[in-house]
Amino acid sequence: MSRLPEEEHPNKAFGWAARDTSGVLSPFKFSRRATGEKDVAFKVLYCGICHSDLHMVKNEWGVSIYPLVPGHEIVGEVTEVGSKVQKFKVGDRVGVGCMVGSCHSCDSCTNNLENYCPKMILTYGAKYYDGTITYGGYSDTMVADEHFIVRIPENLPLDAAAPLLCAGITVYSPLKYYGLDKPGLHVGVVGLGGLGHMAVKFAKAMGAKVTVISTSPNKKKEALENLGADSFLVSKDQDQIQAAMDTLDGIIDTVSAQHPILPLLGMLKTNGKLVLVGAPEKPLELPAFPLLGKRRLVAGSMIGGMKETQEMIDFAAKHNIKPDIEVIAMDYVNTAMDRLLKADVKYRFVIDIGNTLKPTP
Amino acid sequence: MSRLPEEEHPNKAFGWAARDTSGVLSPFKFSRRATGEKDVAFKVLYCGICHSDLHMVKNEWGVSIYPLVPGHEIVGEVTEVGSKVQKFKVGDRVGVGCMVGSCHSCDSCTNNLENYCPKMILTYGAKYYDGTITYGGYSDTMVADEHFIVRIPENLPLDAAAPLLCAGITVYSPLKYYGLDKPGLHVGVVGLGGLGHMAVKFAKAMGAKVTVISTSPNKKKEALENLGADSFLVSKDQDQIQAAMDTLDGIIDTVSAQHPILPLLGMLKTNGKLVLVGAPEKPLELPAFPLLGKRRLVAGSMIGGMKETQEMIDFAAKHNIKPDIEVIAMDYVNTAMDRLLKADVKYRFVIDIGNTLKPTP
Repeated sequence: MSRLPEEEHPNKAFGWAARDTSGVLSPFKFSRRATGEKDVAFKVLYCGICHSDLHMVKNEWGVSIYPLVPGHEIVGEVTEVGSKVQKFKVGDRVGVGCMVGSCHSCDSCTNNLENYCPKMILTYGAKYYDGTITYGGYSDTMVADEHFIVRIPENLPLDAAAPLLCAGITVYSPLKYYGLDKPGLHVGVVGLGGLGHMAVKFAKAMGAKVTVISTSPNKKKEALENLGADSFLVSKDQDQIQAAMDTLDGIIDTVSAQHPILPLLGMLKTNGKLVLVGAPEKPLELPAFPLLGKRRLVAGSMIGGMKETQEMIDFAAKHNIKPDIEVIAMDYVNTAMDRLLKADVKYRFVIDIGNTLKPTP
Repeated sequence: MSRLPEEEHPNKAFGWAARDTSGVLSPFKFSRRATGEKDVAFKVLYCGICHSDLHMVKNEWGVSIYPLVPGHEIVGEVTEVGSKVQKFKVGDRVGVGCMVGSCHSCDSCTNNLENYCPKMILTYGAKYYDGTITYGGYSDTMVADEHFIVRIPENLPLDAAAPLLCAGITVYSPLKYYGLDKPGLHVGVVGLGGLGHMAVKFAKAMGAKVTVISTSPNKKKEALENLGADSFLVSKDQDQIQAAMDTLDGIIDTVSAQHPILPLLGMLKTNGKLVLVGAPEKPLELPAFPLLGKRRLVAGSMIGGMKETQEMIDFAAKHNIKPDIEVIAMDYVNTAMDRLLKADVKYRFVIDIGNTLKPTP
């Protein structure tokens, strides 16, 4: 007994979906559930394009379910709240990030780490409690349990706020958890894309000296002048790497392509921390001696919990931290995906859903 | 201008040394420096045989200088103290571990982490401040700056105290630093040799539930009944590994042979910590997804600082923690080395230097 996506739920919705592994997106009619007693429904105004959207539309991680409506950097304005919703009201500026559900009872959940809950439900392409498939923010409306809704402070522009919900929290969380948020520390950022440029901005706002480490020498001017990094290293330049040995308290490594971590480990001081937020598909080579000799560590971190996501948004608002974005129209999305694949964007595409998503006839 | 080892310094000394990469040890005359104003000289009574002694006598790490007198688990009784020595007096029970010098001014040193000082001087086979080569504890006497001397509490037998100075601190330090010393945590110990069996004892004394993870099913009885572990896992048994997924707060991995860490990572809970204290020569395979998905980390740790070494010895004395040792005579050392290579010892050889090291005529 399969029902059409547009008939599953009472509320009509439309967006753009990928239909197969070509990853090409096109207009798509579906439906959203009625606003439950703890739900917040909102009109989507902007949605960021995350690199994982690119993987998902093409089923590169092997878990995609078509039709797939991507988007987990979703912001908009509340249109309806359920009877038991406490934190939000109609008209509020809100956002939804990477997840819309979790078990609320495991160790991770009780420690405000819903992102590590084994039953965490992704914002799109996942099975919700009612058995239906979740659809993301490349769409006109959104509905989610208020637990997974964050408030966007008034002084943050909505378009720039969108990428904070994934790219922002992904780098903010490890900077906090691994103690790299103390003024005076020296933090390295590997890779200067959507995540990397946010890591530079957050680390600077936390008071760190920031060194950008990149394969591309031509990103130097950008890193130093536009993003405010203190120094820049070309990761393939042995002399520069040697000169930077034992200088960094921590590194946020945003690269998801295969890359050597030995030079990165060498740049860490005693007790230095290399945190991976990108996930190369094949195992990395981990030499043991550089870990032992300086008590260094290699860790991973994946987005952040809801409490910390709100904290991150508030921190961004307070310190006037905004992602650098290129706002696009909905019908530009396939071109944007192609450009993203080539890293041809500074640094995040954000779809102007509110003004450019046209209902299909 | 090279002087014979026995003429370099005013104080005659004798011990056993390896002369070449055969690693065979034989009696050796050398000399020790006069007791400096901050030095403590002591008669060596016992010296443990560490696995690294085995690597060093055969120059397997490529850094050995012959003749090489090994031994960095050295205990004995003070015979002379310099005029400015404050903490020790003649007759005191003392020990020296893996190091006898450091810069005292770098970040590591000022944080009581002399073990991570770039200028740390190893107890044997290293160049001391005066340009002479350091000789270890397979010898009748020892002299060291009091900063690198630890006190052995009265209730710790000297023979059993010896292995604490390397094996003990090597596992105690990461248990403390990585917060695995809290009662009620669940700690895994990989490998049941000199380091591993001490990790079980310390973790138990700290209040942890301890699971031993080993390639040898026949170590189960020993681990549970003699060492007091709570459970035992055969690392190659997929069913056992699967059943233990997401159960451990931390793992102390003492294995220095090449081995897969993916199953170990999988056994860690969210925020779980895999700490390597053995150093495989080739890089390990590090899969990124298990790190990111649960915010796990892989770290290294190498011995410990002097302050912490004293703390560890005092903790061992308080909790009556003693390594399981096999006391041997000096002239059994080459046989002991052969047996150590085959892991045929429970769990540490300790040379009875005081009673069995005979002066060469």
